[in-house]
Amino acid sequence: MPTFMDVHDGFVGVSKEQLLEAHQRDLDLQGPEGVSYDQVWSNPSTGKVFCLVTGPSREAVVRVHEKAGHPTDQVYEVAIEL
Amino acid sequence: MPTFMDVHDGFVGVSKEQLLEAHQRDLDLQGPEGVSYDQVWSNPSTGKVFCLVTGPSREAVVRVHEKAGHPTDQVYEVAIEL
Repeated sequence: MPTFMDVHDGFVGVSKEQLLEAHQRDLDLQGPEGVSYDQVWSNPSTGKVFCLVTGPSREAVVRVHEKAGHPTDQVYEVAIEL
Repeated sequence: MPTFMDVHDGFVGVSKEQLLEAHQRDLDLQGPEGVSYDQVWSNPSTGKVFCLVTGPSREAVVRVHEKAGHPTDQVYEVAIEL
């Protein structure tokens, strides 16, 4: 299953509790798409969020984030992990 | 110890072996800076590289990458991990 890193901007001031709520929407929606959001890193100061995710395709990953209400077009398949 | 995600562009065509060599230079140089490069994700097609790293400061992380020959100004402290 391909792995992707996706990047979001604009999450300035989003607390851990709010991020958990947003992430929970991904988890609730990902099953039918065969997607698994595994790790999330964020910073309320910079508004930057990184998600490590596996899924059958970039399009499936994008769809889950869109349905969850936090779309991004910065979704990068990663082929090598060290 | 703060955690950072850094992003590199332009690693198009860089194989796993070449990335391991580049990463080894980080590992060889990080000790005196108190930095630890823990995970790396890359894609030779997009040239995008993401590194998860801990260190005492953003500046220390930047210095290790500079000394290793692959500088980047895209270094983002992450305050929240899910």
